Amino acid sequence: MKIGIAGLGLIGGSLALALRDRHEVTGYDADQGARAAAARSGVRMVGSLDELLPADAVLVATPIPETVPTLERLTVRSDGTLLMDTASLKRAVVEYAARAPAGARIVGGHPMAGSTSSGFSAADAELFRDRPFLLVPTPRSDDAAMGRAGQIVRECGATVTVCSAEVHDRAMARLSAAPLAAAAALAVAGADAGDLLLAAGPGFRDATRLAETPVDLALELLLANAKEAQLAIGSVIEALEQLRGALERQDREYVRNILVSARQVRSKLS
Amino acid sequence: MKIGIAGLGLIGGSLALALRDRHEVTGYDADQGARAAAARSGVRMVGSLDELLPADAVLVATPIPETVPTLERLTVRSDGTLLMDTASLKRAVVEYAARAPAGARIVGGHPMAGSTSSGFSAADAELFRDRPFLLVPTPRSDDAAMGRAGQIVRECGATVTVCSAEVHDRAMARLSAAPLAAAAALAVAGADAGDLLLAAGPGFRDATRLAETPVDLALELLLANAKEAQLAIGSVIEALEQLRGALERQDREYVRNILVSARQVRSKLS
Repeated sequence: MKIGIAGLGLIGGSLALALRDRHEVTGYDADQGARAAAARSGVRMVGSLDELLPADAVLVATPIPETVPTLERLTVRSDGTLLMDTASLKRAVVEYAARAPAGARIVGGHPMAGSTSSGFSAADAELFRDRPFLLVPTPRSDDAAMGRAGQIVRECGATVTVCSAEVHDRAMARLSAAPLAAAAALAVAGADAGDLLLAAGPGFRDATRLAETPVDLALELLLANAKEAQLAIGSVIEALEQLRGALERQDREYVRNILVSARQVRSKLS
Repeated sequence: MKIGIAGLGLIGGSLALALRDRHEVTGYDADQGARAAAARSGVRMVGSLDELLPADAVLVATPIPETVPTLERLTVRSDGTLLMDTASLKRAVVEYAARAPAGARIVGGHPMAGSTSSGFSAADAELFRDRPFLLVPTPRSDDAAMGRAGQIVRECGATVTVCSAEVHDRAMARLSAAPLAAAAALAVAGADAGDLLLAAGPGFRDATRLAETPVDLALELLLANAKEAQLAIGSVIEALEQLRGALERQDREYVRNILVSARQVRSKLS
């Protein structure tokens, strides 16, 4: 296939590295430095977004605020090309697809892989290996487009899960926004430990790792999905209040029940 | 030195493995299976707690509820022996020391190292390497006892930090109890993600790892330090409420400020 990639950061760069041996891959990035870094690693780069077309597929891995504008610009000339974004939220893409030209073929994609590092320098052909890659059909998806998206994702070593945008964004609030908020809250509260903060063990380090997320990325994660994020943070607050209340009344069995439920959920991931 | 170790689980077992090449190490565990496992690994074991004495030092690494009873029993015959516990909370030990026989020499110890695994089978001579090991003086500490405790800790490869029991237990609530509570709350809230829970990325996995803590250990961590744990959980709830409120009113700058503060705290650990 002829595959274009818009945005050569961590995700787009990793897609390029994972796919270039099997396909004719061409990249574009609005940032000249990113273009140069990708070119140095042997990715064929072009000087404008439009030059990614014609192609069998264009993968849009720009920062979240650029996702829909980039798709919009591509649909003008894409005619049958599979356009797949990789943004971590899907409702905006599905809403755009509903008003996209009838001939556009748009599938929402979300690789559940990442790193607190960013940029092409952190890209890795194996980033998606054995990780879930969620595919969200839009009003401009058809069987051929879903099939092609599935093929590309599997060729990156990822496993495909298909779900709706609503289910996706609600789950992401719980799996991404809430942990980010909790990590930030724990770090802020941890400052009260004073000098002993430096004695923090692996538990505190793991629990606060997401507080290292680059601030602009973290802001988008929370604000772009603000309504679901509020609900998810509310669920966490509620569980913490239950724990605090049980500690206050020394209700050992209640604390145990919460810990057992939590352990059951977590054990599904091991 | 002649060093006795009471309790050959993860911590006591690791102490035994770290110290046995340099010292005459003898172990005791109330559990016959643990005794046999340690003996198979070449740790010299005895059949009763009393047989650990006479010794230059006895390290008490029993489960938390057994810590003070074990110290109590040892002080009857210890006469000048350094007794150092390794419990993750220190107020109870300091309170006991205040009423211990005048000749007893008791130092509180807390290795900031661990694992979600437990038991002698998880013990590792390198568990304490380059990790902080907190030492808490008690009313039955003197310079010689603190010096001997410091020597043992350094020989395990750990770095020594000395602090009071109050400062210690407050910090631990923030560095251990609050992250444990948050991990449990995130896991409970994560169950709402349904099938997509299985698509959780490394962020959610890191943030909820402490929810895998064995339930009895987690219960002790929270209940034995219940008052400080409530305050620490309260600080986390407060920070989460600030974030939720800012999301509700789409106050981008406020969210950014919280994320920046959190990142600054977290960056001290990197």
